[in-house]
Amino acid sequence: MKYTIGVDLGGTNLRAASFTPEGQIIHRLSGKTTLSEGRDRVVHDIVHFIEEIRDQHQGDYQLAGVGIGVPGFIRIKEGVIAGSNNLKVLENFPMRDAISEKLGTPVILENDANAAAMGECWMGAGKDVDDLVLLTLGTGIGGGIIVDGRIVHGMTGMAGEIGHITVHPEGNPCGCGNRGCLEKHASATAITALARLIQLGENLTAADVYDLALSGDPRALQIFESVGRALGIAIGNMINLLNFPLYLLSGGPLPAWDFFAPAMMAEIKTRSFTFRHTNTRVERATLGNLAGLYGAAYLPLIP
Amino acid sequence: MKYTIGVDLGGTNLRAASFTPEGQIIHRLSGKTTLSEGRDRVVHDIVHFIEEIRDQHQGDYQLAGVGIGVPGFIRIKEGVIAGSNNLKVLENFPMRDAISEKLGTPVILENDANAAAMGECWMGAGKDVDDLVLLTLGTGIGGGIIVDGRIVHGMTGMAGEIGHITVHPEGNPCGCGNRGCLEKHASATAITALARLIQLGENLTAADVYDLALSGDPRALQIFESVGRALGIAIGNMINLLNFPLYLLSGGPLPAWDFFAPAMMAEIKTRSFTFRHTNTRVERATLGNLAGLYGAAYLPLIP
Repeated sequence: MKYTIGVDLGGTNLRAASFTPEGQIIHRLSGKTTLSEGRDRVVHDIVHFIEEIRDQHQGDYQLAGVGIGVPGFIRIKEGVIAGSNNLKVLENFPMRDAISEKLGTPVILENDANAAAMGECWMGAGKDVDDLVLLTLGTGIGGGIIVDGRIVHGMTGMAGEIGHITVHPEGNPCGCGNRGCLEKHASATAITALARLIQLGENLTAADVYDLALSGDPRALQIFESVGRALGIAIGNMINLLNFPLYLLSGGPLPAWDFFAPAMMAEIKTRSFTFRHTNTRVERATLGNLAGLYGAAYLPLIP
Repeated sequence: MKYTIGVDLGGTNLRAASFTPEGQIIHRLSGKTTLSEGRDRVVHDIVHFIEEIRDQHQGDYQLAGVGIGVPGFIRIKEGVIAGSNNLKVLENFPMRDAISEKLGTPVILENDANAAAMGECWMGAGKDVDDLVLLTLGTGIGGGIIVDGRIVHGMTGMAGEIGHITVHPEGNPCGCGNRGCLEKHASATAITALARLIQLGENLTAADVYDLALSGDPRALQIFESVGRALGIAIGNMINLLNFPLYLLSGGPLPAWDFFAPAMMAEIKTRSFTFRHTNTRVERATLGNLAGLYGAAYLPLIP
């Protein structure tokens, strides 16, 4: 019986799991990423996790391959992390080949947001489509684009930088050099910045703003409306450009869906006649923080 | 020897040509589209053009198929024009199959902007890439997206509506229901509207504004700068989203490139770190108004 292994390497957590080709988890492991002890330790931990899982598949099991999702830009052909804010120690190291040699198994390295998009397309909210966009909301906003069941990497593995779509040309300055990037108006960081700007309270986190919205605070509700409008502009643009059947959102701010989604959907309706004339779906992703693990595991199975 | 036939059906002109599989034109015909005499006449003219070209390929020639580019949304699987402002008489008519039956040859129906993007990818400015976006500037702004050498149609054939990307959220109202659509700030129509707004002169066409810019008129130059900024916002968004190697512009306002391109490129540089860190090219398309004909002819050859 064929099986596959996915690894989700984050700045904090390391997860790995084996899956059947039908997408059922067989064995699963999780731990911490030990960046402080350097590159070799991280690579060792990954290999060890995979071996531990592999060892549990005796007899008739046959490993199709290993997929690894990491936060950062990947040079796909080389299997190298070109840049990563969270995994600086792994930059420009031939990680794919190093792990593959240690394991004696083919390894595929992929950006974590791309892997998450693939995961949702394989076993999540996008099971029934071949084309989708996933937006991952967090400290920043990332994303992945799937066309015809395949990840769009772009020329240098930088496709899916949805957080840097301009939604307000004269908007908030962004570290990328632009103004009005989506992530400056709709990420968790943007929520806390907006709360500070309108003096909603001292040192509020995005979760605090959410709690205030839950309690009916009109200014907290306004913040989520503003977040929804920014998301709506960006998603409306993507619908007009791509005419995909499905746009998914995931990440920390997702529990606040009921606070931001009405403004988001209203904005999309206004800004996209394609949306109004089709059955385009804009929905919550369903695999949560396991999406990247699913997607990584699916990589060796892609025909 | 294999050959292919492309047809470009516009609201005014009808063009057809045969091509070698290497992209060399063999025979070419052009005439007027006679919409006033109804659907059957248009279909008859197309079939007649194709037959006339086919008759010139005697002996060893073997027709691979016929591709037809038309302005409008296409239901690709059915080969039907779902909606077209310029070809209303052909809407919801099984055009592909009607022509295919009359000719006894496979026919592919495609949106004209998609065909033009494919044409540029086959034999034009995009010959050396597999992924590109073409923006067609005219009365409105359309476009086509090529991923991995194939046209992105989207769910209902509406992909590539680049003219309706929001560039100024509070900008000029658009017929689509949105505000600040790219085509309300950068099409030929937008150029004349801007000229009217700043009272540059009576009933100026976009070509008149171009002539004024040529003569050094500062307000005409300002109009093209504003057009360039709008294009730069939209193209910067696409670069951040797609990380493609090539974005092409074509259409009537292209001679004004030197007037709008500096502002466009400055805007792209500011708004896209992906652009700044890669060899992304933003250039003029090279096949002019033959791009659609080339692309239509290539459709039967796509593997």
